[in-house]
Amino acid sequence: MKGWTPTALRQKHVHRQQCDFVQLSPESRNYKGIAISLLVIVAVCSLITMSVFVLTPGTVPNRGPRDLMEFICRVIVTVSFKVAKYSLSPDMKYVLFSLTFLEVWELNPPEVQNAVLQHAAWGVKGQQLIYIFENNIYYQSDVQSNSLRITSSGEEGVIFNGIADWLYEEEILQSHIAHWLSPDGERLAFLMINDTLVPTMFLPRFTGSPYPRSQEYPYPKAGQPNPTVRLLVVNLYGPTHTQELVPPDGLRGREHYVSMVKWISNTHAAVRWLNRPQNVSFLTVCDATVGSCVQKHEEASDLWLTRQNQKPVFSKDRSRFFLTIPVKQGGQGDFHHIAMFTKSFRSDQNDVRHLTSGNWEVTKILAYDEGEQTIYFISTQDSPQKRHVYSASTIGLFSQRCLTCEMNQEACAFFDADISPNKQHVILQCKGKVCAFSFWISFSQIQLYVVKPNLFWVIYETWLGSNYAMIDGGPGSQSVSDEYELGWDSVLVSSDEVIVARLDGRGTGFRGLRVLQQVHQRLGTVDVQDQIAALDYLMTLPYIDRARIGIYGKGYGAYLTLMLLRSTALIKCAAANSPVVDWKLYASAFSERYFGLTSKNDNRYQVRNMMKGPQGPDFLLIHGTADANVHFQHSAELIKHLIKIGANYTMQVRLYPDEGHFLSLQSQKHLSESLVGYFRTCFQDFSTPLPEEIGKEDDD
Amino acid sequence: MKGWTPTALRQKHVHRQQCDFVQLSPESRNYKGIAISLLVIVAVCSLITMSVFVLTPGTVPNRGPRDLMEFICRVIVTVSFKVAKYSLSPDMKYVLFSLTFLEVWELNPPEVQNAVLQHAAWGVKGQQLIYIFENNIYYQSDVQSNSLRITSSGEEGVIFNGIADWLYEEEILQSHIAHWLSPDGERLAFLMINDTLVPTMFLPRFTGSPYPRSQEYPYPKAGQPNPTVRLLVVNLYGPTHTQELVPPDGLRGREHYVSMVKWISNTHAAVRWLNRPQNVSFLTVCDATVGSCVQKHEEASDLWLTRQNQKPVFSKDRSRFFLTIPVKQGGQGDFHHIAMFTKSFRSDQNDVRHLTSGNWEVTKILAYDEGEQTIYFISTQDSPQKRHVYSASTIGLFSQRCLTCEMNQEACAFFDADISPNKQHVILQCKGKVCAFSFWISFSQIQLYVVKPNLFWVIYETWLGSNYAMIDGGPGSQSVSDEYELGWDSVLVSSDEVIVARLDGRGTGFRGLRVLQQVHQRLGTVDVQDQIAALDYLMTLPYIDRARIGIYGKGYGAYLTLMLLRSTALIKCAAANSPVVDWKLYASAFSERYFGLTSKNDNRYQVRNMMKGPQGPDFLLIHGTADANVHFQHSAELIKHLIKIGANYTMQVRLYPDEGHFLSLQSQKHLSESLVGYFRTCFQDFSTPLPEEIGKEDDD
Repeated sequence: MKGWTPTALRQKHVHRQQCDFVQLSPESRNYKGIAISLLVIVAVCSLITMSVFVLTPGTVPNRGPRDLMEFICRVIVTVSFKVAKYSLSPDMKYVLFSLTFLEVWELNPPEVQNAVLQHAAWGVKGQQLIYIFENNIYYQSDVQSNSLRITSSGEEGVIFNGIADWLYEEEILQSHIAHWLSPDGERLAFLMINDTLVPTMFLPRFTGSPYPRSQEYPYPKAGQPNPTVRLLVVNLYGPTHTQELVPPDGLRGREHYVSMVKWISNTHAAVRWLNRPQNVSFLTVCDATVGSCVQKHEEASDLWLTRQNQKPVFSKDRSRFFLTIPVKQGGQGDFHHIAMFTKSFRSDQNDVRHLTSGNWEVTKILAYDEGEQTIYFISTQDSPQKRHVYSASTIGLFSQRCLTCEMNQEACAFFDADISPNKQHVILQCKGKVCAFSFWISFSQIQLYVVKPNLFWVIYETWLGSNYAMIDGGPGSQSVSDEYELGWDSVLVSSDEVIVARLDGRGTGFRGLRVLQQVHQRLGTVDVQDQIAALDYLMTLPYIDRARIGIYGKGYGAYLTLMLLRSTALIKCAAANSPVVDWKLYASAFSERYFGLTSKNDNRYQVRNMMKGPQGPDFLLIHGTADANVHFQHSAELIKHLIKIGANYTMQVRLYPDEGHFLSLQSQKHLSESLVGYFRTCFQDFSTPLPEEIGKEDDD
Repeated sequence: MKGWTPTALRQKHVHRQQCDFVQLSPESRNYKGIAISLLVIVAVCSLITMSVFVLTPGTVPNRGPRDLMEFICRVIVTVSFKVAKYSLSPDMKYVLFSLTFLEVWELNPPEVQNAVLQHAAWGVKGQQLIYIFENNIYYQSDVQSNSLRITSSGEEGVIFNGIADWLYEEEILQSHIAHWLSPDGERLAFLMINDTLVPTMFLPRFTGSPYPRSQEYPYPKAGQPNPTVRLLVVNLYGPTHTQELVPPDGLRGREHYVSMVKWISNTHAAVRWLNRPQNVSFLTVCDATVGSCVQKHEEASDLWLTRQNQKPVFSKDRSRFFLTIPVKQGGQGDFHHIAMFTKSFRSDQNDVRHLTSGNWEVTKILAYDEGEQTIYFISTQDSPQKRHVYSASTIGLFSQRCLTCEMNQEACAFFDADISPNKQHVILQCKGKVCAFSFWISFSQIQLYVVKPNLFWVIYETWLGSNYAMIDGGPGSQSVSDEYELGWDSVLVSSDEVIVARLDGRGTGFRGLRVLQQVHQRLGTVDVQDQIAALDYLMTLPYIDRARIGIYGKGYGAYLTLMLLRSTALIKCAAANSPVVDWKLYASAFSERYFGLTSKNDNRYQVRNMMKGPQGPDFLLIHGTADANVHFQHSAELIKHLIKIGANYTMQVRLYPDEGHFLSLQSQKHLSESLVGYFRTCFQDFSTPLPEEIGKEDDD
């Protein structure tokens, strides 16, 4: 449910609130690289003379590590979105720009003319360059060498080499990059994604020229032909032989996805293969020299498999690896915990040891320190809303320690961390502090922002998919957490005496698979029930104005919004941004994961036919007409249906011509103002002064 | 500015209020035909036994003419829209259906498979049939004979034979039919319209299937390549030789339109040829046997030529013809009057006599009675709002008589008429009665509907293009007339104490060319000034609530609405339906007629760049996304522009997915309710009770 930007150079808007750090030594090569590249950005932006000493390798400024990190923290806040546009080569001699600047080496292979650069990045050593034009991969060993065309089968909208098609980018890899360099930079693994049989969807273009052209791209909807995929490895030094990595027997000749590729040595890569229904997967280790893959772990589920693009953490000799897998916790169902797989000397099988347990989840394995026999990870052990950094021993009783719980001086409750390769240093990032309120009601969790003591209104909000940092909007995502966020709704909270509530019900993540997978084959049922239960609870609070309840959702959240409208009369104002109206019209990998394969007359898939007619609430529909993710088609079907049944909704439409799932900055601003204006007006229409207020007026 | 339905079998919704008649004799063959065909429809609808005697030729029911006509009148009201779907053959033996019914002869030529029937009609004698598949004309001499393919060059969206492309249908011929049979049925003249060089516009489709396909069709915008046209005649009996009718010397090799074709004998056709700037045209008489054309009349204008698809009325021997042409009326400019062109015995030139004169217009020549030496016509002599039927002698002093002014017992003020071929009978149709109020203010004319005595609000309305009976929305059309109309605004008038005003300013028709042509090269200037002048006048009326003024317009009217929004702060509520926002994006033949050929940076063409920013009024935008006439592109550009400049309009959008310039019945209903709701709410927001009212409440 995330957004999709067709070009490689998408901008990521990162809000970083605060930056803690733990000791940095000048020898740390990687960190020096990051620091310098950030400084380069600053230099480019301001064109101050400071850039001179930064651009010269070896002359790192002679400042204490603490000063430097503080500087980086400040830089992250202001120029973080520009980082994606620039990149320093590993030998720190060159900067890669997507803009022409100073002395320029053009990426201009003789095979292409007037083509758009789809991707470009430095390799792993020297000045290695990998870039993509017309769905073909090009390689240069250094900036002045000739380009080497790695593939020639690429065809726009049909064959994708090393770059993801829409489905792989959005639903499988969560990245547009579908190629991976081995640690020594000698081998390149890449996906060849074949969309020949995938039906194309068009994105209309309305503006900018007298005859705007619409755009077509392959988009497999539920039950439609999927792309096929091959995983290939090419040798960049020596003869350019292309070796295919062979899928496991269980999937050969059957529809499948390649959901994860990670080099674990210069010749071996870990690869995860997933069947189309997404309930069986194989983690293999493949020998890139011969193409053979050995199965290391098989997962299966009666429902669907989670975390299929999680990268396992291997020991250097590849005899051991770590993975989070669902582990049964008594009667409370499965939770994600760290499993350690060790090559058994007695059999071909791995020994499996569970390093963690409990009714909480490990969200991320950070690093494995072989010397200290310690694993670092992030978990929800403290609370599903919080994220702390932990270490656990991989020997003995697996004794465990929270590294951030104690240093919680400013009540930081939501951490992220990067651990340096030598396991000596960590950058900690505080993403949010403890929230004001939160309650548990059966399955759903509520968060209230309370700013002023005299509260009249409540916006009841299902907020999904709009934060790009979420791995998967829809099932598995989380709204109620201590992660910091600032949106248009904050305006209402701070100046309109509105309470904003965020609710996580069944289907959301980080509270175990039982909560998550209750929505299997019934999206829009139990998740909606939980929203209603939470709403009913809110109604019992003394400071809530029951006559003025609003709701906002985007994508899957907008789907829930629409489902709620037909299920309860409590809601007076509602805004649905890019709603999914029919899951048959949405992406195969998403819809099939939660609904299974479609049957023709399956009305679980549809919202619109369930929308009731008269006496609905006021209702704001928002959509970009060039949304490549949730097509404008959904809103069009909804509007058409409401007209057909003569529905009595006062439906307003905010249309963003030629805009995608994520709006341009200008349109974001417009939408924020629109939403604030909409809820203000809508709530005002239902305003009935409280008895005390009337009394007061009489007194004046 | 009319709507466009891509299929030939469009439905025309005709409201006929009332039906007068003047004597009908049973011998009148044509009338009998009409009567019987209507009765057939009734028979088909109800399947009653009455159909038996009707379907048998020669057994016309033995009823008095008056009874029969009354019956027809009733039938017209109830089944008129079905008439377009059925047609009786001239020998009255067969009925042409577009539905399979009873015994069926399929129109199924061997050359086409799975093609859509674009047009089908009876010829002029026997069971002659002309029909069109895949832009090629087919002919059958009777229902059982084999089809004869007349053309083979037809290609969808490229070459149109006998059927109009979008531009010809909408702006030139005002019909999708581009073929004409000679009176003896032996020759068929047709246009071959070549759109090879015309850029195509796409109409997006959003609903109805998982992968809806958008549709492309040639649409020449202002300054873009136009279709080329050839006029051909084919002999249906004897060898199928195709003869091209040659354009006049002045236009040969230059871009031009064929704007009118009319057979005036079995071998001769009158043809009007018009240059692309639409300021020079030639009326010729062409000999279809050899293809040569003789010029009969040339028109030229410094501005643009009007009435270019008017058909001249010829005498039987072709020595004389009648035409309305602009004639100077002293200081008051040109008005359309009847000119009689008679072949001069002294020279090759025609004698021209002007049969009518005065500061009023002849709107239509009905017939020429050669025996009585009388011409019948409709004019605005009584008032520009009225239409009466007149006769004038074509000899002596051209003495003139109003035929309907005296019979005006029910104050019928707006007549139309059909005169039988033998000039003995006429069907009169009353289209409206005298309106309640109307004023003249300089150039603009205002019509107020006053229903209740206590009036609060006024909707100030520019109404254009929504009445299909108007020949040309935009310049030359008329809003203020005694023609009866019933719309959503009538609801406001009858139940919301709203006054509806319709205003005709400069640029509107039927009050002479000076009024009409003031808008040349300045659409959206003087016409807007007149709207404001009229509005200012309305403000002086005691019963108008100045705080609550609304405005509605469609197409060109919506363009004026937008222009008015930036010109006056008087308007509080506005609805713009399918607005033209940039005339460069509109049809070549329309934009070029009023603006001349485009220059690149001509901002007279644009509205959007003139839309101001903050503090605009509340504003409702309405558009069908598949509007083939005013593309959704216009609204998209407008929305994008308003977002860009951060305009402070409270803009609502009513979107009709996959609907065209004219909405489906269901959507029309939805829009009517929407408009009534919008104006009610918007006016309410500005409601401040009148002082008297407050007083009243105190009394209670």
